[in-house]
Amino acid sequence: MPKAKARRAYCLPHPQPTNALEFARFTGIPTFMRLPHITQAEELDIAIIGVPFDGGTTYRPGPRFGPRHVRAQSAIIRPWNPVLKVNPFAKHRVADFGDLPVNPLSIEDTFRRIERGLGPVLKGGARTVCVGGDHSISLPILRAVAKKHGGPVCLIQFDAHNDLWDEYFGSKYSHGTPFRRAFEEGLLRDGGVLQVGLRGQVYGEDDFDFARTHKVRMVTAEEFHAKGIAPVQRHLKAFRGKPVYITLDIDCVDPAYAPGTGTPQVGGFTSAQIVELVRALRGLDIIGCDLVEVSPPFDSGELTSLLAANLLFELVCVL
Amino acid sequence: MPKAKARRAYCLPHPQPTNALEFARFTGIPTFMRLPHITQAEELDIAIIGVPFDGGTTYRPGPRFGPRHVRAQSAIIRPWNPVLKVNPFAKHRVADFGDLPVNPLSIEDTFRRIERGLGPVLKGGARTVCVGGDHSISLPILRAVAKKHGGPVCLIQFDAHNDLWDEYFGSKYSHGTPFRRAFEEGLLRDGGVLQVGLRGQVYGEDDFDFARTHKVRMVTAEEFHAKGIAPVQRHLKAFRGKPVYITLDIDCVDPAYAPGTGTPQVGGFTSAQIVELVRALRGLDIIGCDLVEVSPPFDSGELTSLLAANLLFELVCVL
Amino acid sequence: MPKAKARRAYCLPHPQPTNALEFARFTGIPTFMRLPHITQAEELDIAIIGVPFDGGTTYRPGPRFGPRHVRAQSAIIRPWNPVLKVNPFAKHRVADFGDLPVNPLSIEDTFRRIERGLGPVLKGGARTVCVGGDHSISLPILRAVAKKHGGPVCLIQFDAHNDLWDEYFGSKYSHGTPFRRAFEEGLLRDGGVLQVGLRGQVYGEDDFDFARTHKVRMVTAEEFHAKGIAPVQRHLKAFRGKPVYITLDIDCVDPAYAPGTGTPQVGGFTSAQIVELVRALRGLDIIGCDLVEVSPPFDSGELTSLLAANLLFELVCVL
Amino acid sequence: MPKAKARRAYCLPHPQPTNALEFARFTGIPTFMRLPHITQAEELDIAIIGVPFDGGTTYRPGPRFGPRHVRAQSAIIRPWNPVLKVNPFAKHRVADFGDLPVNPLSIEDTFRRIERGLGPVLKGGARTVCVGGDHSISLPILRAVAKKHGGPVCLIQFDAHNDLWDEYFGSKYSHGTPFRRAFEEGLLRDGGVLQVGLRGQVYGEDDFDFARTHKVRMVTAEEFHAKGIAPVQRHLKAFRGKPVYITLDIDCVDPAYAPGTGTPQVGGFTSAQIVELVRALRGLDIIGCDLVEVSPPFDSGELTSLLAANLLFELVCVL
Amino acid sequence: MPKAKARRAYCLPHPQPTNALEFARFTGIPTFMRLPHITQAEELDIAIIGVPFDGGTTYRPGPRFGPRHVRAQSAIIRPWNPVLKVNPFAKHRVADFGDLPVNPLSIEDTFRRIERGLGPVLKGGARTVCVGGDHSISLPILRAVAKKHGGPVCLIQFDAHNDLWDEYFGSKYSHGTPFRRAFEEGLLRDGGVLQVGLRGQVYGEDDFDFARTHKVRMVTAEEFHAKGIAPVQRHLKAFRGKPVYITLDIDCVDPAYAPGTGTPQVGGFTSAQIVELVRALRGLDIIGCDLVEVSPPFDSGELTSLLAANLLFELVCVL
Amino acid sequence: MPKAKARRAYCLPHPQPTNALEFARFTGIPTFMRLPHITQAEELDIAIIGVPFDGGTTYRPGPRFGPRHVRAQSAIIRPWNPVLKVNPFAKHRVADFGDLPVNPLSIEDTFRRIERGLGPVLKGGARTVCVGGDHSISLPILRAVAKKHGGPVCLIQFDAHNDLWDEYFGSKYSHGTPFRRAFEEGLLRDGGVLQVGLRGQVYGEDDFDFARTHKVRMVTAEEFHAKGIAPVQRHLKAFRGKPVYITLDIDCVDPAYAPGTGTPQVGGFTSAQIVELVRALRGLDIIGCDLVEVSPPFDSGELTSLLAANLLFELVCVL
Repeated sequence: MPKAKARRAYCLPHPQPTNALEFARFTGIPTFMRLPHITQAEELDIAIIGVPFDGGTTYRPGPRFGPRHVRAQSAIIRPWNPVLKVNPFAKHRVADFGDLPVNPLSIEDTFRRIERGLGPVLKGGARTVCVGGDHSISLPILRAVAKKHGGPVCLIQFDAHNDLWDEYFGSKYSHGTPFRRAFEEGLLRDGGVLQVGLRGQVYGEDDFDFARTHKVRMVTAEEFHAKGIAPVQRHLKAFRGKPVYITLDIDCVDPAYAPGTGTPQVGGFTSAQIVELVRALRGLDIIGCDLVEVSPPFDSGELTSLLAANLLFELVCVL
Repeated sequence: MPKAKARRAYCLPHPQPTNALEFARFTGIPTFMRLPHITQAEELDIAIIGVPFDGGTTYRPGPRFGPRHVRAQSAIIRPWNPVLKVNPFAKHRVADFGDLPVNPLSIEDTFRRIERGLGPVLKGGARTVCVGGDHSISLPILRAVAKKHGGPVCLIQFDAHNDLWDEYFGSKYSHGTPFRRAFEEGLLRDGGVLQVGLRGQVYGEDDFDFARTHKVRMVTAEEFHAKGIAPVQRHLKAFRGKPVYITLDIDCVDPAYAPGTGTPQVGGFTSAQIVELVRALRGLDIIGCDLVEVSPPFDSGELTSLLAANLLFELVCVL
Repeated sequence: MPKAKARRAYCLPHPQPTNALEFARFTGIPTFMRLPHITQAEELDIAIIGVPFDGGTTYRPGPRFGPRHVRAQSAIIRPWNPVLKVNPFAKHRVADFGDLPVNPLSIEDTFRRIERGLGPVLKGGARTVCVGGDHSISLPILRAVAKKHGGPVCLIQFDAHNDLWDEYFGSKYSHGTPFRRAFEEGLLRDGGVLQVGLRGQVYGEDDFDFARTHKVRMVTAEEFHAKGIAPVQRHLKAFRGKPVYITLDIDCVDPAYAPGTGTPQVGGFTSAQIVELVRALRGLDIIGCDLVEVSPPFDSGELTSLLAANLLFELVCVL
Repeated sequence: MPKAKARRAYCLPHPQPTNALEFARFTGIPTFMRLPHITQAEELDIAIIGVPFDGGTTYRPGPRFGPRHVRAQSAIIRPWNPVLKVNPFAKHRVADFGDLPVNPLSIEDTFRRIERGLGPVLKGGARTVCVGGDHSISLPILRAVAKKHGGPVCLIQFDAHNDLWDEYFGSKYSHGTPFRRAFEEGLLRDGGVLQVGLRGQVYGEDDFDFARTHKVRMVTAEEFHAKGIAPVQRHLKAFRGKPVYITLDIDCVDPAYAPGTGTPQVGGFTSAQIVELVRALRGLDIIGCDLVEVSPPFDSGELTSLLAANLLFELVCVL
Repeated sequence: MPKAKARRAYCLPHPQPTNALEFARFTGIPTFMRLPHITQAEELDIAIIGVPFDGGTTYRPGPRFGPRHVRAQSAIIRPWNPVLKVNPFAKHRVADFGDLPVNPLSIEDTFRRIERGLGPVLKGGARTVCVGGDHSISLPILRAVAKKHGGPVCLIQFDAHNDLWDEYFGSKYSHGTPFRRAFEEGLLRDGGVLQVGLRGQVYGEDDFDFARTHKVRMVTAEEFHAKGIAPVQRHLKAFRGKPVYITLDIDCVDPAYAPGTGTPQVGGFTSAQIVELVRALRGLDIIGCDLVEVSPPFDSGELTSLLAANLLFELVCVL
Repeated sequence: MPKAKARRAYCLPHPQPTNALEFARFTGIPTFMRLPHITQAEELDIAIIGVPFDGGTTYRPGPRFGPRHVRAQSAIIRPWNPVLKVNPFAKHRVADFGDLPVNPLSIEDTFRRIERGLGPVLKGGARTVCVGGDHSISLPILRAVAKKHGGPVCLIQFDAHNDLWDEYFGSKYSHGTPFRRAFEEGLLRDGGVLQVGLRGQVYGEDDFDFARTHKVRMVTAEEFHAKGIAPVQRHLKAFRGKPVYITLDIDCVDPAYAPGTGTPQVGGFTSAQIVELVRALRGLDIIGCDLVEVSPPFDSGELTSLLAANLLFELVCVL
């Protein structure tokens, strides 16, 4: 057992959320799920990290405010999950690690900062739960995660769009291209990617060519609405025992449930369905995750940030 | 037949909503469903009463504005229910009784005012439909109702939370504790309570101990999403022929459908589902009801008040 | 082959939307789906036309701003429909025809202007897709369409209300009466009308008498929620091979998905369901359509306009 | 002394607003300034009347909801005006008369209904304070008022636009034309009209020709900003001792203070300035007034309705 | 020089806000003005403290969310005040102390918690800047401050209302009564209170009797609009050299500038005027201050929280 | 007289806005002030051009939607300016040129696209009025303008911030640095820059060093509030007869009047004041202008876009 791990397991009490029965939910400086703010990664099993970058958006901006609003709305989270029967804060050492210092003026510089920022956390033994920010941040995160794991990893992606486009306006990096880049850079395994929730118009039928070449598994929103969760569960069996990274783009959910996002697409999941889908990941060997594209300036009544806060909790529960 | 009842049945025309084919819906001083404002309880079978108190909220306030906004949005209600095949205003004498004079600065004083305010109405033979206000108001209402019925009553509760907690910040009375107090005060029957729509995190597995001790029946939101209305219908059979009080916390519905509430919880009912659930109560011996936790300051586009206005109508239809 | 048609087919390139991979979606003067603005109807197969009139509303006004907001939100539409496997802009010559010059101060004058405005377009051989505006506009549109087709036509109506009332405030023309007038004027065929999504309170059971007299087919929202799309599909068989006009009142959708409308009614379709319903029209002989009652002043986060933009695309795909 | 007047003065207590020290401001069915709802005009000195018509708007609709929202926001009004040193409810018998039954589908029919509705009120001896509704309603009101007074009257108009245009879209009646029609119909005196707050672009310099012909006095917003209230006060001297009708279009105020209006114009008054202007009317022989163009669907945080409620109180104070 | 003071002055570096040129303003866990979160009062000269209580509101609730939103909006504050020529964070040791643990269910219990919470901070030598919360919190704060200073203190109050009422609904404690109680409890000096910004209706002329008895100085909003800051400056001379507590109710500002407040009153200050007024306090012996009645649920575009954040900075600058 | 100019003056009718007396303001595809969309620069005297780029923002994004919303709100503009006594569309050939094709993913590439896009327009003899976008776009515009004018130009800047900072996050280009770069690149004249409206905190007194070195003239907001427009008028005399470029950052206005902006600063101008300031530019030799930092996602009720549309008209009037 490594030294850091040992200390975590034996010497320190688990960080706990502020108790809402004593300190009302609207009080205090808002951290993720009212957890302590801890920046010593070696003390943690799971580090929740804000990545407030939205320089990769092609339509509506705003996810730079995602971490701030998810923190505020996560004040409502209580610790016990009565469906999964787990208190993740009792099981793991979880804390709010703070935000990475992004550069809103440069996507390339931000990618370097993200990769550099996550390295020590992963090295210290913690798994990272990143709260975006737009979907472009998944590329530098995958670089760091694949480096830590010594090679390509599997990916389960909840998303309305497959984000496998090649480029926009002549630029290779954006929130529409991270997973094409990740395949090209050898960060993802052929056949090891599952995309759930795809729907809406694309530019042409050949938009799916890249996905087919890399044997990407897909369950469209239409298939889910027709058949329920069973097809997803069948695909999930292929991921058992393999290192899987999870990425959840909030636009997999319908705009009625998550209006605050950059490229909203009608016909998506309900909140009950996405919760069911995340819970279905239980038992996988999840090596990290991110939750992206929450855009508070386009939200209505903080609906999207509130749902994201709940999904953040569910993700921590299945980690 | 009691004298008051007789007069109601034979002497007075039934109060009718203002006709929207002659007076446009946006005109007039807004009462519940455009009914007359009548404060002589003895003239009524059903009194719709505002209880604008939100001093029991622990997170987001605002339900004190519930009655005002539900009144405004209820201008859209027409009188014939084509599914239940009933015009409740032809069947019963229904009116807007006005609001009870709550004290926003004191929960204890407000409880006294509510109990005192409902007494004469119930005594006069009318059933009360209270529009909150936060869920704490159900306790003084149940005190008045149980008193009128001479003992503990049954309860059907649509809610995301069971509201059976013991205390917050050292206080016994809040919107999280009314039904624990009601059990302790002998207002509810063991085995006579059904909770529908429970979901979301709690503080620990022992949060359900009190419910188990009192044989509270539960249909979680997850169970409903998986199996539909059948499990609820099975439970409802046990309530036939018994005096049942109905309490509907608008947060049983998903925040996408009812964003304006104090402690929103994702994964809830759709509007179609809650309408179906309320209609399923037809045939029960309903002795009164309330609809609570509509918080207009947190609403989007009056969605929540509009849904509440419709549920108010459906509740009146099954009374 | 008529001359105009020939020119369209052989001589001119198909109008194409601005390419969002080169010109970002937030740029440019907003037309419907970023299509060119073309007012020579004879160059078009399908003319998308704004009809910004809301003088027929009886409760909440605002649909006069429908075309402007649907244009803006339709910037997100991409050209390939991966479910129907069609790019409608490759198949047909489609463009934004602009708005008809309505008179907000007179419903009768506006009806004349609409009928007069559509005449040449229809005569030129294009089919019209009108974006309202309130539902009253369907009457002058049907007058023009029936004239073009030489007699009564079939109608498929997605709507929460049947819009077959006789009059409001002594006025014969409003958004609650267009199809009664259309029947009376001989524009619709008995037995040739299907209404999908009806729900909510009405004034009395006899509100359905007119519909029964004219053998209107109905699938209520409640029936759809219980049985899915099958009953609709059964009815649709009767429409095969006949000229069918489609009218889609956005209030067929639930207010959670389409809050921006004049007479919102809870218990409606989800966005996935209405998309499924529109796609089910494929294969019918559709002679035109309209999409009405989008009221931006009552919208939340442009949800309704965004959904309308998607339905506009789906309608064009099935034309 | 006339009989009705005598009864009012001696026999009946003055109607009083609900006391907010006993019944909280958020409780109760909302009437104007929490006054009783009284429809017997002969009991009143001042009748506050809603006229929820907006069929005369040429750009943004919505004033039909003006009375409903002004009622709700007027709950904050207390009875004593410490600057004018008056309690208007002690001085006059004032009440909420309710709304006139407008026809949203016809401007001509609505004009008839307004004139017919006001006749008996004026005849009974009460002065009317009408809450619009768009500015077109001032024409039928002036018809009724001039009839009561036996000839043309003076007018003081607070407004960003002079509303003296001739027609729109070929229609003679709209919110841009009431005072041209009023001059043409002999309801207003040449030289007896003062317009305060004019600003913004017009169609051409000749837009002022009609005003010049009728010797309309004007104080533009620019003049007010440069010189303060003095020029207005000079003009007011000419109105002393003459019967003056007051019309206040809320768009005289800057959109920052009153965003909820149909044709907002930057560069307007602050709330303090318009209050000062209304108070300057004290001492005139005011024979009635209206407050129009409050459009709640375009409001932000009820700012406009709140300001209108305060101006309503100030108007009642100077009556 | 006391020991704690000495250590503060010589041994510890001054806490500094996060540098926005390196870490973008939208990043990080939001504290007041991006200052460190420090709970050791003895290390501080000025402790900024959230007091998120709104159980004393009589109309619109919501100030419980004041501290959270002021923290978020204060991210925009830079450290140098170019008008006062001061960097308060270089001059004083300032930090975010966190929130006091209020009890939303009991005003009396919360008062005890506030007084108990502030005691050690004041004893440690720091001055407190409290961010409310509603105005009722000023009473327990004044209790703590007067205790520390050994007797009654002076007060400068920026407010639309004098908050000297006696009771509401039979309750002695609310946001309308704190300074009457403070006078009664001997916390304030006769002749030592200045109220700036009073305006709006009251219940009667005798509402000012209590103020007159205690020689309260007043500059109404009307007087300020007519004469500018001079009358205020004259009053301020009387406060030179005396211990003065400052309380700023955000409703002293006009609703156009601060819509998010509990009892908005038109005719108030602009943002430039209130900034000028706060800067005019420079040179006084200010012993503490609070900023109250920011109600985010009723805000538009975070305008009120943003203004409050700026006023918080200006207050710290004059301390 | 150059050929292009000649053709413009003699051969073509002046483009005119759509007449709102015939086509209601809410109709039609929205262009700037309802002018025709013309992309042949040589036909124009003044080209209004959208530059929807916001990749230079350091806090709140959103100005990429500026042109779309200013277009929509400018539908309310009428052609005659009664204060300046001018109809700019009669005097000059003005049209909506459309948007420049920015790259949201790269600030450097966008700068190249802007400079490249403006070159031909300026060469063709038209003056450009650019609607941003964030303030970073002024740098490439100034590059194009200075190139056209063969050397450094004068600048009048309405702004809350001087935008002369050196860098953010190690990046030289952002909305906080354009004019420092412009001075460094020799695009601006020493002593030839006037900044009006500066206010709010900065990082330190040395933030003004660069301005002093380059003899930048300043009139702070505080000076304007104290002394009115006179000091600005004195400075303007120095600009008579010199080529002056105008840049108007909407944040020079107070957030109450323009909430929708990236870095709002309290204490700013009213709408009447900024209109007065722009009108004061009449008579200068203005060689072009821009209006930036309108951020619709942070706007309330389109207030900011509406004000910007009016300022756009006033700018065109003084060109």
